[in-house]
Amino acid sequence: MLDDLARIGHDPSTNGYVRDAWSAADLELREWFRGEAGRLGLDLREDRNGNLWAWWGDPSREPGVVTGSHLDSVRQGGAFDGPLGVVSAFAALDVLRRRGVRPARPLGVACFTDEEGARFGVPCVGSRLLTGALAPDRALGLTDDAGDTLADVLTRAGRRPGDLGKDDETLAMVGTFVELHVEQGRGLAATGSPVGVASAIWPHGRWRFDFRGRADHAGTTRLEDRDDPMLPFARMVLAAREAAVRRGVVATVGRARISPGNTNAVPGLVSAWLDARGAAEADVRALVAELAEGAGVEAAEESWTPVVDFEAGLRDHLAAVAGRALADREAAPGEVRDRARAEVAPVPVLATGAGHDAGILAAAGVPTAMLFVRNPSGVSHSPEEHADSADCEAGVAALASVLEDLCR
Amino acid sequence: MLDDLARIGHDPSTNGYVRDAWSAADLELREWFRGEAGRLGLDLREDRNGNLWAWWGDPSREPGVVTGSHLDSVRQGGAFDGPLGVVSAFAALDVLRRRGVRPARPLGVACFTDEEGARFGVPCVGSRLLTGALAPDRALGLTDDAGDTLADVLTRAGRRPGDLGKDDETLAMVGTFVELHVEQGRGLAATGSPVGVASAIWPHGRWRFDFRGRADHAGTTRLEDRDDPMLPFARMVLAAREAAVRRGVVATVGRARISPGNTNAVPGLVSAWLDARGAAEADVRALVAELAEGAGVEAAEESWTPVVDFEAGLRDHLAAVAGRALADREAAPGEVRDRARAEVAPVPVLATGAGHDAGILAAAGVPTAMLFVRNPSGVSHSPEEHADSADCEAGVAALASVLEDLCR
Repeated sequence: MLDDLARIGHDPSTNGYVRDAWSAADLELREWFRGEAGRLGLDLREDRNGNLWAWWGDPSREPGVVTGSHLDSVRQGGAFDGPLGVVSAFAALDVLRRRGVRPARPLGVACFTDEEGARFGVPCVGSRLLTGALAPDRALGLTDDAGDTLADVLTRAGRRPGDLGKDDETLAMVGTFVELHVEQGRGLAATGSPVGVASAIWPHGRWRFDFRGRADHAGTTRLEDRDDPMLPFARMVLAAREAAVRRGVVATVGRARISPGNTNAVPGLVSAWLDARGAAEADVRALVAELAEGAGVEAAEESWTPVVDFEAGLRDHLAAVAGRALADREAAPGEVRDRARAEVAPVPVLATGAGHDAGILAAAGVPTAMLFVRNPSGVSHSPEEHADSADCEAGVAALASVLEDLCR
Repeated sequence: MLDDLARIGHDPSTNGYVRDAWSAADLELREWFRGEAGRLGLDLREDRNGNLWAWWGDPSREPGVVTGSHLDSVRQGGAFDGPLGVVSAFAALDVLRRRGVRPARPLGVACFTDEEGARFGVPCVGSRLLTGALAPDRALGLTDDAGDTLADVLTRAGRRPGDLGKDDETLAMVGTFVELHVEQGRGLAATGSPVGVASAIWPHGRWRFDFRGRADHAGTTRLEDRDDPMLPFARMVLAAREAAVRRGVVATVGRARISPGNTNAVPGLVSAWLDARGAAEADVRALVAELAEGAGVEAAEESWTPVVDFEAGLRDHLAAVAGRALADREAAPGEVRDRARAEVAPVPVLATGAGHDAGILAAAGVPTAMLFVRNPSGVSHSPEEHADSADCEAGVAALASVLEDLCR
């Protein structure tokens, strides 16, 4: 099914994907989601915040079990981050249908809007709006590089900006949420298991640093007369790495806007975005404060996600169910019944530095878990992101068993 | 007349101008030029390279005296850099008409295409193509930020890319070239004179540094596993300033492209542009070599303009003519004839770090001079660029006298 999506938003010059929220590519991906829902006879709903839900059974009568992820991408990202979770969700439903499973609870597939925040700078916009973690006024005022607000973009896409906001009715339908995702590190590659379960998401955030100077002619302005914001910006980039090493966290400056950006002019303004994460919130906060103080500018917080510790009971139960599913796949047909009674090792449990919609739902009190699929190189947010087909299939098998178990 | 242009390409949010070559704003400015030529009954020609010429008299019979400048702008530039020279040219022709001057040689107003290089990275494209300093194949392959080549852009503007190239026939019409320009430093502000004459243009160039790394996830990639090109880029920015101070030249990094530019991803590539200039070519070359070696990457030369020493005889003659014109303006009507016989101080002669089409024509062997109009703050390539109206009028008076003198 991933092959169906391979051309949407694909940049042949880099082999990467550009799938900004509400772009033409995103709208095409949403159409594909509708098509899959139709193929499986699911009931499709788009909620007030643009998240898509495809239901097997009626979740308004009883909260259901939901799986899914997102279809948008970072710019020049890979094929797996997001889509693997949505594609695996539909594939797992196919498996359950083939097994003749009739779920005792409603079962849903979700596609959250704008998980990456590539266009408007704030990640997990769809799930944050849904849970009330992001105020609709703030979301609507976010602007993209072309200067369009989210409100403009929604209107152009035929949505009503006034609908945005906390949606308790939709949230109440989600009894349990399980997100499958490609791993974005090499934790599983080290264990030898194709599938794992998440223990926690590190606290993480994004901050904007505005370095203001004075635009001037690059040829005629003496060095001593310049107020060039590139210099404090460059110092901040180097200080961020040094402080991150010292504090045992990660810090990244992956985006900056240099204005006006003429080769032959000193810039007037450099805006730089810092992404910082770590196991301990205090260390991340201290790093940001240190950089802001060193640079003498404010660190404007654009998003902050506290630590997410996934519910231990659910986590360990699903690790056991997934472990059994993988063992059954490997067993010869006659062995399965015997093995079912024997002890089977659970899949590995591991923490991650990557944010996910699952973290937003967990923070809102929804029982939530995540399955990871092995990434041999650990590379993500890059065209080189990869997962082997066999591992993706193992992920579908594990997800199908997990859903079957939760819907009992 | 500058007021006629005030709204074209104006960005009300910054008060700056964005007038990329061949953009809608540029096409509108070119229409304005046609209109002014028509108003004055001049013969308008567009040469093979898109430069505009408005002739009083027939330059195919005898080389003429040409004045003018450019109408394009750096991004978020000021109102004066370029347009002041074109507007003053037409205004000076108005003055000559009012004085009843009938020039003995053809007199032309020129508007050179893409002086700033804001869109395609190479400055003085129109004059370089004209003189053969830029090969048409190289020019046509230049790409803008949208990925369009100059060839694409010319075709869209109804021009024929195949026409581009050295144009000896047009160049032969230019007997002498005088460019009036707002000063881009505070040399005249220090002397007290509203007008000056250029002695030289510093050698200057532009180089691109490509820092290649590996795109990766900002949350899950350990610092020790990263190959983050932002770090060597930041070190280069700081090294450029340090080396420029040490070597007594100017060096600027005013533009960089960070790819893919996601907040939550380590970039895969940072391309940075260095602008470096100085009185001595050897110092500029040594700075660029030092930075390339320090960064371990190639400094790809995008343009290079050797030192331009304007012809001393013409320069000193015009400084004297301009000095007389300014003195006459200040004199009471009765005094003028007496003063004409007395010694009047020439206007100041000064060097500049800014490149101009005049420098390209001088390098091609055309007798060339420049007049500068005082800039109180010295700020240029910025919305804050300014020249007082009285100084602009003094510039027109000086230019009119210079043209009258040269056309005798």
